[in-house]
Amino acid sequence: MNKRIVLSILGKILQIEALFLLFPAIVSLIYNEKSLWAFLVTSVLTAGVGFLLTIVFKPKTAVIYAREGLVIVGLAWIVMSLFGALPFYLSREIPSYIDSFFEIVSGFTTTGSSILTNVEGLSHGCLLWRSFSHWIGGMGVLVFVTAIIPNMSDRSIHIIRAEMPGPIIGKLVPRIKDTSRVLYLIYIVMTAVEIIFLLFGGLDLFESAVLSFGTAGTGGFAIRNDGIGSYSPYVQWVLTIFMLLFGINFNLYYMCLLKRFKSALKSEELWTYICIAIGATCIITTNLYFTMPEFNNISDTVRTSAFHVASLITTTGYSCGDFNLWPNLSKAILFILMFTGACAGSTAGGFKISRVIIMFKTIKKECHRLIHPRSVKAISFEDKALDNNTRHGVTAYLALYSVCILAVFLLLSFDKLSFESNFSAAVSCFNNIGPGFDAVGPASNFALYSNFSKIVLSFAMLLGRLEIYPLLLTFSLGIWKRSK
Amino acid sequence: MNKRIVLSILGKILQIEALFLLFPAIVSLIYNEKSLWAFLVTSVLTAGVGFLLTIVFKPKTAVIYAREGLVIVGLAWIVMSLFGALPFYLSREIPSYIDSFFEIVSGFTTTGSSILTNVEGLSHGCLLWRSFSHWIGGMGVLVFVTAIIPNMSDRSIHIIRAEMPGPIIGKLVPRIKDTSRVLYLIYIVMTAVEIIFLLFGGLDLFESAVLSFGTAGTGGFAIRNDGIGSYSPYVQWVLTIFMLLFGINFNLYYMCLLKRFKSALKSEELWTYICIAIGATCIITTNLYFTMPEFNNISDTVRTSAFHVASLITTTGYSCGDFNLWPNLSKAILFILMFTGACAGSTAGGFKISRVIIMFKTIKKECHRLIHPRSVKAISFEDKALDNNTRHGVTAYLALYSVCILAVFLLLSFDKLSFESNFSAAVSCFNNIGPGFDAVGPASNFALYSNFSKIVLSFAMLLGRLEIYPLLLTFSLGIWKRSK
Repeated sequence: MNKRIVLSILGKILQIEALFLLFPAIVSLIYNEKSLWAFLVTSVLTAGVGFLLTIVFKPKTAVIYAREGLVIVGLAWIVMSLFGALPFYLSREIPSYIDSFFEIVSGFTTTGSSILTNVEGLSHGCLLWRSFSHWIGGMGVLVFVTAIIPNMSDRSIHIIRAEMPGPIIGKLVPRIKDTSRVLYLIYIVMTAVEIIFLLFGGLDLFESAVLSFGTAGTGGFAIRNDGIGSYSPYVQWVLTIFMLLFGINFNLYYMCLLKRFKSALKSEELWTYICIAIGATCIITTNLYFTMPEFNNISDTVRTSAFHVASLITTTGYSCGDFNLWPNLSKAILFILMFTGACAGSTAGGFKISRVIIMFKTIKKECHRLIHPRSVKAISFEDKALDNNTRHGVTAYLALYSVCILAVFLLLSFDKLSFESNFSAAVSCFNNIGPGFDAVGPASNFALYSNFSKIVLSFAMLLGRLEIYPLLLTFSLGIWKRSK
Repeated sequence: MNKRIVLSILGKILQIEALFLLFPAIVSLIYNEKSLWAFLVTSVLTAGVGFLLTIVFKPKTAVIYAREGLVIVGLAWIVMSLFGALPFYLSREIPSYIDSFFEIVSGFTTTGSSILTNVEGLSHGCLLWRSFSHWIGGMGVLVFVTAIIPNMSDRSIHIIRAEMPGPIIGKLVPRIKDTSRVLYLIYIVMTAVEIIFLLFGGLDLFESAVLSFGTAGTGGFAIRNDGIGSYSPYVQWVLTIFMLLFGINFNLYYMCLLKRFKSALKSEELWTYICIAIGATCIITTNLYFTMPEFNNISDTVRTSAFHVASLITTTGYSCGDFNLWPNLSKAILFILMFTGACAGSTAGGFKISRVIIMFKTIKKECHRLIHPRSVKAISFEDKALDNNTRHGVTAYLALYSVCILAVFLLLSFDKLSFESNFSAAVSCFNNIGPGFDAVGPASNFALYSNFSKIVLSFAMLLGRLEIYPLLLTFSLGIWKRSK
């Protein structure tokens, strides 16, 4: 383990976080809020610690192997959150540090679960920091680091691989630094376009920016107590469409930039994603229209259904009504969407549709093997043969994923909330969605949980965002041993 | 597909079922009950249809391949259940045929979920048939068929493999027929020993036999409305120990018969099973003792905890109290035990501990691969290297298992019961346990569900008992195509 490079990159990340913290500071300044000094103090502190780390731990060699990549990512997200929680705590807008930590982890991991009972009581600076953390966490802070830091060796693919979700991470362009830049460029442009669309809907710049950050990172922090419910249908449709767009693999956008539209449109994952979204919307619309008297207008029903399908499949977690009160069938479909998640290589969380596809293909192959024990049939995905390592990776991930969700559920059961609350909280936090059902439904929040449970859920969010391994391995002894 | 041999073996199974039906008929005769004629009519009908099938479809060749094995098992369990439901329906003791079907499927699959609100209203004949179906289904009716039918080719390993649960089915002795006989012999002797122990506890022969059948098959149908609650502590301990014993891989008993105690005691699965059972009992005992005022006696608390741990880990489903009212932590542990199940090669359902072990080893290997991408490290289980096919089989099964549980949950959501009821009903039926939580908890039953949901749950039980593939493939078109 090259500990020096790990700590030195950690230092750089803290310096970048210090820069990011200036953004809400400016907003606080504009709105003339007391939270300004909290952001400034945190920024200076973070920059100082970061600076110290880079000075003290000058790496002797820039070589990064897979293990360093995993540990950098695992530690970076924890340290970032520890510092990122400070502004909430120092400004006393969230009086408990554990609550502040929960809130910022929920932000960075793009979960969007909140312990706040009254969001509207927060200052503009803090509201922006919450939503901006979605934006930072959506694409990944380390992807950002590799994009801007000079002299990063090309081995930093190991960092990207550990931070980016999904079973297969390809290089878009030969140099990894360029890949990161292309990704962030697409990300920035799309966010800007969404802000413009929302401005047309009559929102002010602050509200447009905050909602767009929440959509872009598929996070889901809202700034009104009723979530998205009080916005106009136009705004809700804009959010629906952009949530779905941010759930698509960014590689496809890059292909479009290169005018390789055909290859982009051939993506199996894309079409499966679209079909699931449309299918789920149709079923929920029908279910709501025919069973709930308040859904007597077909266009409202379609909009509400599409909004929640988009919100849950992309693991954003915005809500414009309390789906907790919906009939069982609609709830069950939303529950299942919580698991699938959107496309790999997007900002969305969850299990990822490409993994679901590979899983179904593995099942099909296994069925075939049972009938024809001696036949050897290769399976392919996105026009490429699936190698054994990828398939093993996906199924091992499913196993680990199931174990983690059950473990989180078990730890939550020390609390007194209902089975449905605990189970959906575990699923929701782990998949970085936001709301669950019952006591953690969209109309409620996570304030009811004990401090212990809040810490468990914070780690569940981190595990889910980083797809388990980086965090798990950072805390395993084996990785810290000197390699032979 | 050799359709003739499929139908001919199906005929033989029906003839054997007809013989089995005489057993409750005798009990009805002894107790002088009206249900006698229902058993006789069903027996004659079943024998007749079975006889016709064997006469009409004389197989031209006795060769059985994997596909025939799967289809025979898939069809046999459905047909057996269709006929086995008749006595309940004809005697009008269960007035609806769908309810009768649910009840007998629950019996054969050793689930033990019931739609009856008043079990004590049933005749002795019907009570015996319910519990006896557990005994038949526990070891598998096709294992029985291969044990007694002459001229079965040695290829019938394909049938055993499709019917016996667990990832690896070995032959105990060179000839498959002898394997089946050994298994049934151990099964009969253990059941007899349990009956004797229960007789010592002051129960009459009928009650001892019925409870022993329920334990041996890890089924869980009780014959009193309060389950096992009103029996003496001695009886409850006997049941606890025998439930655990029937959850152990029968191969280990066979090894003991051969005096190979050392190899038997080396089983990884056995020790994991024992550790999980003891660990869970300790946690639940502590949890109940310190949180629930009615558990003020430590010996009662240990007994109740051990009883329910044994009942749920072996997927039996007996209950001696309403664990639905227990604190969250205990409920969560029981919920997780519902998934693990007991050992492969036992009569228990669930995911099986050997699969859990293989899963964890796969995860460990994957972690190792991430840190050392180029290393190739073999994993072993029970002192043997795990080949790729077994590992793929286990992980593909996990994927299929998760998909099936979610699908059953989705279909149940057409009903109006709570999230907790539906989810635990899906998990409970699929894992062949019996009770769930909330509206389907141990103090309630499945009568509240609609007919549609009852049929869904019946198929869930069959899928779970047969470990999905036989049933799934029986209904897939591919398997019926002429092989090239």
